[in-house]
Amino acid sequence: MHILVTNDDGVQAPGLLALAQEMRALGKVTVFAPDHNGSASGHVKTMDHPLRAREVTLADGTPALTTDGAPSDSVALALLGLVKEKIDLVVSGINPHENIGHDVTYSGTVTAAMEAVIGGVPGMAVSLNAPDDFHGVLEYSAAAQVARLVAAKILAEGLPEGVLLNVNIPYLKLEELKGFMVTRQGLRVYRDALDARRDPRGRPYYWIGGDFPTGIPEEGTDYGALKAGYVSITPLQLDLTAREAMEEMKKWKWE
Amino acid sequence: MHILVTNDDGVQAPGLLALAQEMRALGKVTVFAPDHNGSASGHVKTMDHPLRAREVTLADGTPALTTDGAPSDSVALALLGLVKEKIDLVVSGINPHENIGHDVTYSGTVTAAMEAVIGGVPGMAVSLNAPDDFHGVLEYSAAAQVARLVAAKILAEGLPEGVLLNVNIPYLKLEELKGFMVTRQGLRVYRDALDARRDPRGRPYYWIGGDFPTGIPEEGTDYGALKAGYVSITPLQLDLTAREAMEEMKKWKWE
Repeated sequence: MHILVTNDDGVQAPGLLALAQEMRALGKVTVFAPDHNGSASGHVKTMDHPLRAREVTLADGTPALTTDGAPSDSVALALLGLVKEKIDLVVSGINPHENIGHDVTYSGTVTAAMEAVIGGVPGMAVSLNAPDDFHGVLEYSAAAQVARLVAAKILAEGLPEGVLLNVNIPYLKLEELKGFMVTRQGLRVYRDALDARRDPRGRPYYWIGGDFPTGIPEEGTDYGALKAGYVSITPLQLDLTAREAMEEMKKWKWE
Repeated sequence: MHILVTNDDGVQAPGLLALAQEMRALGKVTVFAPDHNGSASGHVKTMDHPLRAREVTLADGTPALTTDGAPSDSVALALLGLVKEKIDLVVSGINPHENIGHDVTYSGTVTAAMEAVIGGVPGMAVSLNAPDDFHGVLEYSAAAQVARLVAAKILAEGLPEGVLLNVNIPYLKLEELKGFMVTRQGLRVYRDALDARRDPRGRPYYWIGGDFPTGIPEEGTDYGALKAGYVSITPLQLDLTAREAMEEMKKWKWE
């Protein structure tokens, strides 16, 4: 098995290293990730300028590839042939903070896994639910072991075409985790606020600021599972059709 | 009614101007769009640097706002209060080329409308199906009139919460259009290829190149409607849960 590991925090992020190390238990690992942080960078296909790719070495000596493109670009470049050997699975992460609810279309971590699925390869995004205001060194080893279990499951069972897995893991010790829960995408509550400032020359600029987002911990959802101490596994699809609304709107009078 | 008009081709794009002019028939129009082309830029929330916003004038003298952020950033900034007056509808476009199938998560045009919905305001993306290799001056007036009809419908009927409309319009004269069709998201066929080159210093760089994407013109889909000469109206939702896969995966043995 050949596993491509990527992320949206940059190729030298500790969450990626922990993930790459665990994935080696399942087969050959190729690391190819952006050379910069691309959080909330969205699902990108860079077409108006060319991309660079170069070799780097991770903290444990692992050789890796990095690009100035987005997380989804690194997956596209790899699948289009920049990585020669056939790829069986793309795993993206480990993001330090959860990707739940509406986060999924913004998230570089999740959109990298989307790109895998569009390229015909199973994809999986892995995020940790570390406290928003945590500033120390995060412990990724439990989450990486969980990611390995889920990846092994995908490799054994396969995923339906067009489906990726969005995995969110509570920030707990392995023995404290309650288990796995297959969930639906829940509801995020964004608490963004406009923070208008003046630069040293008196001209206005704006931060999208405010409080950290929260969520509605409804039962059966990604956020509900996390809050209850379970690993949340949400199968996502790229068909966004709102079926109910579609049937309703077919009845509207269009002229 | 107060309508925010944005796009992903930049505030001075002719498709935006045509759209803004038509929307004025429905109420007050505020234009706020990126100062650069952001095609396939994805659903972005810029948080690691601040954003600028400044006033510009469109080709017909209309005052407008522009930002160095992404299309979705311009919607977020507007809804967070940079535009003071309450916004009733966000219309994004007119993109010169169709946004169908898997395009929807990449598309700056569509993700701007997603941002509206996340902000609690109805959103609608408008794209024209101009030939991929067209290099002249595109005629946007028919598409802009169609967009006005659809926007009027949204303002009259309302949209279900969390739903945006993805509107794609054949590149035809108004009288040549066959009518409206409410569709589901179809399947895109990307024909990307890696184009590896050497810079003047001998170092490699890569274009994501290849042929223009095509699609599967299945009946009932966005692309099927376009190909048959109909305006395609696809209601999209931001809940990406793959329900069928979810039920299946609940039966898997997780330990």
